[in-house]
Amino acid sequence: FDKDLYEGNNVAGVVTGLAWTQVGGDILFIEASLSPGKGKMSLTGNLGDVMKESASIAMAYLKAHAEQFGIDYRIFDQWDIHIHVPAGATPKDGPSAGITMLTALTSAFTQRMVKPHLAMTGEITLRGKVLPVGGIQEKILAAKRANIKDIILCKSNRKDILEIKEDYIKDLNFHYVTEMSEVIKLALLDKKVKNALDTAYKKASKED
Amino acid sequence: FDKDLYEGNNVAGVVTGLAWTQVGGDILFIEASLSPGKGKMSLTGNLGDVMKESASIAMAYLKAHAEQFGIDYRIFDQWDIHIHVPAGATPKDGPSAGITMLTALTSAFTQRMVKPHLAMTGEITLRGKVLPVGGIQEKILAAKRANIKDIILCKSNRKDILEIKEDYIKDLNFHYVTEMSEVIKLALLDKKVKNALDTAYKKASKED
Amino acid sequence: FDKDLYEGNNVAGVVTGLAWTQVGGDILFIEASLSPGKGKMSLTGNLGDVMKESASIAMAYLKAHAEQFGIDYRIFDQWDIHIHVPAGATPKDGPSAGITMLTALTSAFTQRMVKPHLAMTGEITLRGKVLPVGGIQEKILAAKRANIKDIILCKSNRKDILEIKEDYIKDLNFHYVTEMSEVIKLALLDKKVKNALDTAYKKASKED
Amino acid sequence: FDKDLYEGNNVAGVVTGLAWTQVGGDILFIEASLSPGKGKMSLTGNLGDVMKESASIAMAYLKAHAEQFGIDYRIFDQWDIHIHVPAGATPKDGPSAGITMLTALTSAFTQRMVKPHLAMTGEITLRGKVLPVGGIQEKILAAKRANIKDIILCKSNRKDILEIKEDYIKDLNFHYVTEMSEVIKLALLDKKVKNALDTAYKKASKED
Amino acid sequence: FDKDLYEGNNVAGVVTGLAWTQVGGDILFIEASLSPGKGKMSLTGNLGDVMKESASIAMAYLKAHAEQFGIDYRIFDQWDIHIHVPAGATPKDGPSAGITMLTALTSAFTQRMVKPHLAMTGEITLRGKVLPVGGIQEKILAAKRANIKDIILCKSNRKDILEIKEDYIKDLNFHYVTEMSEVIKLALLDKKVKNALDTAYKKASKED
Amino acid sequence: FDKDLYEGNNVAGVVTGLAWTQVGGDILFIEASLSPGKGKMSLTGNLGDVMKESASIAMAYLKAHAEQFGIDYRIFDQWDIHIHVPAGATPKDGPSAGITMLTALTSAFTQRMVKPHLAMTGEITLRGKVLPVGGIQEKILAAKRANIKDIILCKSNRKDILEIKEDYIKDLNFHYVTEMSEVIKLALLDKKVKNALDTAYKKASKED
Ligand SMILES: [Ca+2]
Ligand SMILES: [Ca+2]
Ligand SMILES: [Ca+2]
Ligand SMILES: [Ca+2]
Ligand SMILES: [Ca+2]
Ligand SMILES: [Ca+2]
Ligand SMILES: [Ca+2]
Ligand SMILES: [Ca+2]
Ligand SMILES: [Ca+2]
Ligand SMILES: [Ca+2]
Ligand SMILES: [Ca+2]
Ligand SMILES: [Ca+2]
Repeated sequence: FDKDLYEGNNVAGVVTGLAWTQVGGDILFIEASLSPGKGKMSLTGNLGDVMKESASIAMAYLKAHAEQFGIDYRIFDQWDIHIHVPAGATPKDGPSAGITMLTALTSAFTQRMVKPHLAMTGEITLRGKVLPVGGIQEKILAAKRANIKDIILCKSNRKDILEIKEDYIKDLNFHYVTEMSEVIKLALLDKKVKNALDTAYKKASKED
Repeated sequence: FDKDLYEGNNVAGVVTGLAWTQVGGDILFIEASLSPGKGKMSLTGNLGDVMKESASIAMAYLKAHAEQFGIDYRIFDQWDIHIHVPAGATPKDGPSAGITMLTALTSAFTQRMVKPHLAMTGEITLRGKVLPVGGIQEKILAAKRANIKDIILCKSNRKDILEIKEDYIKDLNFHYVTEMSEVIKLALLDKKVKNALDTAYKKASKED
Repeated sequence: FDKDLYEGNNVAGVVTGLAWTQVGGDILFIEASLSPGKGKMSLTGNLGDVMKESASIAMAYLKAHAEQFGIDYRIFDQWDIHIHVPAGATPKDGPSAGITMLTALTSAFTQRMVKPHLAMTGEITLRGKVLPVGGIQEKILAAKRANIKDIILCKSNRKDILEIKEDYIKDLNFHYVTEMSEVIKLALLDKKVKNALDTAYKKASKED
Repeated sequence: FDKDLYEGNNVAGVVTGLAWTQVGGDILFIEASLSPGKGKMSLTGNLGDVMKESASIAMAYLKAHAEQFGIDYRIFDQWDIHIHVPAGATPKDGPSAGITMLTALTSAFTQRMVKPHLAMTGEITLRGKVLPVGGIQEKILAAKRANIKDIILCKSNRKDILEIKEDYIKDLNFHYVTEMSEVIKLALLDKKVKNALDTAYKKASKED
Repeated sequence: FDKDLYEGNNVAGVVTGLAWTQVGGDILFIEASLSPGKGKMSLTGNLGDVMKESASIAMAYLKAHAEQFGIDYRIFDQWDIHIHVPAGATPKDGPSAGITMLTALTSAFTQRMVKPHLAMTGEITLRGKVLPVGGIQEKILAAKRANIKDIILCKSNRKDILEIKEDYIKDLNFHYVTEMSEVIKLALLDKKVKNALDTAYKKASKED
Repeated sequence: FDKDLYEGNNVAGVVTGLAWTQVGGDILFIEASLSPGKGKMSLTGNLGDVMKESASIAMAYLKAHAEQFGIDYRIFDQWDIHIHVPAGATPKDGPSAGITMLTALTSAFTQRMVKPHLAMTGEITLRGKVLPVGGIQEKILAAKRANIKDIILCKSNRKDILEIKEDYIKDLNFHYVTEMSEVIKLALLDKKVKNALDTAYKKASKED
């Protein structure tokens, strides 16, 4: 499976992350998808416990700060959310997909488009702080190879970028952040995706 | 147990997949069956975690894109779904049955007939992308042996087919896809099976 | 515990199977019993995962094809079902009790008598196909010893019978099947057991 | 903890069993106790899986044959049942407490007195058959030591008794059974215990 | 953490037990605390399975004999109960805290004061019998060191006390019991604690 | 990840603790966050069983003593609480974050500001006692490095502070406590955080 190709932004809830694997850096896709339901969260993609926890933190953060992102919190009980990280045969773990997961969830619940040719890596905390992660240089190589233009990183990872040869990264724009709100501002467009789901709050019908 | 024989398409929800086992390629049957219920999914057939995740991804995808396949999403709460992969004594794992599972689920909920003499192999993602899988040449041998005529594969697996001697595969039609919607278009007939279940949405009765 | 004795057919839900153990063939009893409840299924008898899956497949099949066996599917929510396989200290596993389990469940829900002096062995699939199983010759020896007269097997197991010395099996009637519907037709009498439970659908009372 | 002393029959739900441990035979007490509830069953006493299954079989049998023992099956949803087997530090397993458990449950739900100076050992099946168990001679020694007068055994265990020196067991009365109904008839008196619980069915009150 | 100091009896639900650890005897505190709820029981303090079972037995006994202790059984559904055994880093197991747990629970639900300078050790059964436990001499040393005056033990543990040098234990009062009802009579004062919770049964309000 | 920097007190529910790791002392943040819900508690941050138990004890204590902290206990059923301890990749265990957790929970439910430049370490019991913990000297070094001014410790840990060279700790204020109520008084300001959540009890609306 060749994940080295960026795949566009026409679907809400799909965000490109950067992973550091045993065989070097790679890009990965966080896919978050809603279906009518009751607030259940499912996780697939051969994820380890720390990565599952990142999804749980991201969901808790989004629920606690729904208003800030223009989400009526009552809709969280009206949809089931599934997060998948292809490819299914590869075990994945670690906290560095945290900000990618929160961005994917926010896009799914708002149906806002993700900025094209963007990738990101960083741990989140429950307060919305962005924490630095490892493997930055390998991840940057993978991002270039995959035709990524913009990269969001924790401010504390700037030192890792400064160590990379200038010439090599001149085509990439780095965005350094410390708070999750900055990530969302950088990563999500105001515009909704084509054929956006109607995620507005619906009163329960009498029949149900 | 001799799985090398294709067994017809008179039942909805049964789709032929291609498996790559320690003793070579083989065909396998994904059996998806509905019974009146509340939306519970059961999985049997000695399935490993990755294969169980494929079923979960397939179900989430179908729920999120129900309309596209002509399914009223409210029926997902009116049926229990069971997926079995014979034979029960053989452990099975891996993501390559993903598209077969989604096809089986779609057939079960629509009661549409599966195209005869068709087999398929490929991983699905939550967005409905089809990803390439391994063991293609062994799987093709098994398909021929089982009297399969049409085979659906991920476009990226074309290179594996091109390496097979022309003469050997002249009786087989290959269909290369990148999206799950293409699989369904190729795999399901418009016609329903004989004695199709009535899966239309039913209002809850007063008595219940 | 001496299981080598057939024990009559006066109770609904009890069907004789054939097992292949480390010390040779043996007969075993599948006991399925209903009590007023809400559709819960319990399994006991030191059963391994594959054998538990067989029970789950059998139940799903019966629920999906209730009408065919004259069962109102709404009763599945009005009874709890317990399946036990004596003796409790012996671990048991494998798919070969599948058809015996489905027969026991069908007898329990219909209260139809099981044909006397009958035993069976075979795997079921979710579509109701009967698959061949191993240890046939050892199982046949055990059946004879236990005074069994009729034996149901998968058609593909015929070859195993043809290898047994004619003289040895002249007192046994073999019934070869490929579909579960044939098993039920052969195994269950139309007549209900004495003191049959009333398993007809009951409207929920106002009080409840 | 010295279990070698029989402790009277003034409490419903407490029945004396015979166990075969690494250090010889012993008596044990099955304590079944009801509290107002919703049908939950709890098991304690460091019990292994097979012994837990025996409790589950006993409960299923009692529910399916409630009428036969004069129990209104609707009361099973009005009480929680707890089964404990002292002493808590000793691991216990095996199916031989099956008939003792069913007797204890029946006494608890009917509040009928247990026959004094009685002990028993035997496996139960879901149909109510009593199966033979091992360690009979060691168990009989323990029963004598504990001042037991009557012992219930499976008919197939008679051969084990016949091998014991006549003189040694002349003070003991053996009752050989094949069906659970015989055990209950032998073990429970018609009389209820003093201060018996009122376990008659109660209509749900309006308030609740 | 120095558990060797008795800490007073001003809080309901806190009872002093005696433990036998790898480094000798020690006192421990069973803390049982109520909060408005629905009958859930939580256990913390690094407890092993046998010790958790003791809590479960104690709770079942209290529920079944609520009336005897002046408790309206309907309140068990109106409170959640948490049992903690400090210190959290030390693994603890065994049945010997059983009577201490039941005493703590009874004090919590009745809000009755615990007798000052009292400690106890003993296993409980579901019938309320008190069983002897080990490590008595080490436990007595710990009790003296912690300024305990009264000690409750199982009658069968008297022989262990008789082996201790008279002079050493002359300041301690030993209370030998066989039934849980004696423990409660000895351990709980009639007087409620200051600022006692109102644990009387409350009718559900209309609003809820 | 550099946790050595104190990060301010502008968010309710975030409290600074002191940890003792294999590589020395460190500060850690307990993040407790509310979202509208039904009383579910989630824990993340790679926490071991003992640390999870601390959170459970803290929650039980807060529920049982809600009134004392000015909390209407009925709100516990109206919010879900998530506790996270960054960083996600580091396993954490032990009881010493107990008082930090309770402080974070109390701040979250009251929305009261946490005193600036404060850190704490100590085990809690269910009665609200504060117990001493280990690694004090390493923890103090980490606190100084992180610009902490006030430190809360168990009174029994005073001896550990007295062993530190006077000169080294002259900038730090130590607060020794024995009860949880003292911790809350020292750690939480009366003032609520800016943009405080409205956590007052809300009557369920008719619509819901
Ligand atoms: Ca790649
Ligand atoms: Ca994380
Ligand atoms: Ca084959
Ligand atoms: Ca997959
Ligand atoms: Ca046998
Ligand atoms: Ca099977
Ligand atoms: Ca003994
Ligand atoms: Ca048994
Ligand atoms: Ca100590
Ligand atoms: Ca115990
Ligand atoms: Ca650090
Ligand atoms: Ca703790």
